[in-house]
Amino acid sequence: MREVFQHQLHEVQARLVDISELVANAITQAEKAFNSPDVRLAETVIATDPRIDEMAVKLDENAIDILALQQPVARDLRIVVSALRISASLERMGDIAQHIAQLARFRYPENVAPKALRDTFSQMGELDRQIANKLTELLRTEDPDIAIAMRDIDDAIDELHVGVFDTVLSETWQGEAMATVDVTLASRYFERFADHAVSIAKKVQYLQTGAWAGAEA
Amino acid sequence: MREVFQHQLHEVQARLVDISELVANAITQAEKAFNSPDVRLAETVIATDPRIDEMAVKLDENAIDILALQQPVARDLRIVVSALRISASLERMGDIAQHIAQLARFRYPENVAPKALRDTFSQMGELDRQIANKLTELLRTEDPDIAIAMRDIDDAIDELHVGVFDTVLSETWQGEAMATVDVTLASRYFERFADHAVSIAKKVQYLQTGAWAGAEA
Repeated sequence: MREVFQHQLHEVQARLVDISELVANAITQAEKAFNSPDVRLAETVIATDPRIDEMAVKLDENAIDILALQQPVARDLRIVVSALRISASLERMGDIAQHIAQLARFRYPENVAPKALRDTFSQMGELDRQIANKLTELLRTEDPDIAIAMRDIDDAIDELHVGVFDTVLSETWQGEAMATVDVTLASRYFERFADHAVSIAKKVQYLQTGAWAGAEA
Repeated sequence: MREVFQHQLHEVQARLVDISELVANAITQAEKAFNSPDVRLAETVIATDPRIDEMAVKLDENAIDILALQQPVARDLRIVVSALRISASLERMGDIAQHIAQLARFRYPENVAPKALRDTFSQMGELDRQIANKLTELLRTEDPDIAIAMRDIDDAIDELHVGVFDTVLSETWQGEAMATVDVTLASRYFERFADHAVSIAKKVQYLQTGAWAGAEA
């Protein structure tokens, strides 16, 4: 019985890694679709999102079955509760990758990012890709150093996010209202994606310490 | 023992109602701060948000204790798992009310909403207020008709959200880039607030039926 239970727990953790890989893949493609721009790739991201949602629902069902049938306590209970929380955030990260792809598709063949901001968005996309890959590694290894690296990446993204507004509000900004709307939303999406990654890192920390880091940024 | 357990479950549900009331209060004040504009009220909303976060963390701790000590099954288990999910969404709704208040404070004494959009934002704020109050009632009564009314309100907010972009992208729009950024973010916040309320209504539905409605919009 105990062995079955441990196997089920490992399964839940392995599925989190699987979903995180899909999310990392989605943001990699979304940022490429956004920055190229590439409408086909954007459509791929949009078409893949339901798969992430489905996997998250399945994982939640498994976690709830474990709670009902195995009635875990202590660290085992924390693993299951964390899995529920982490899957919700991963699902949300998938949604954001999809939103970025939708922006790219909507403006195609135009580039969503005007010339003045292409470098910035290309860096934001690259950093989101990095933080998503680190997240997968963190879920696989639970190495706390990875969480620290993720916070550094998030800080860099926050700075770029502020920089986008500096550009848009500067006197040299010549974008039409549409461009302003687009870059405002895009910048917010890239920034939120990283926030969710950091919030998951906090949940992994809870798993290890039992101390709940609490509210998200 | 059984009696203690039922009392603990009711406590968790009562705390959800309390948090939801605080969130309803926060959005009521945030929309007033935003639409008046009223910087003092904005500061009240911002100062109150940590209280919502704290209550959500406390509720989560209680829910996890119940899982560990009472090992609930069937509907009782669903109540506890739903409470964890609902508290995360309520906490996020509080954050959004805070973001709206921050926008108001940042632009004060200017009004964030330019004249052409004041009616729209005033309606969005009023509908967010309504959906938050209905949410509190839903958590209190679990009456499924309330969930239906909430979806109607959400649809109306989505329409207003689209209307904001129609205005901003129309030829008559004379807003500077700053105004465009502000109304883009504000409209997104008002719209997301209602999305979270609807996602909680789905979680309440799960509580009643055991069928998990899955991914959020």
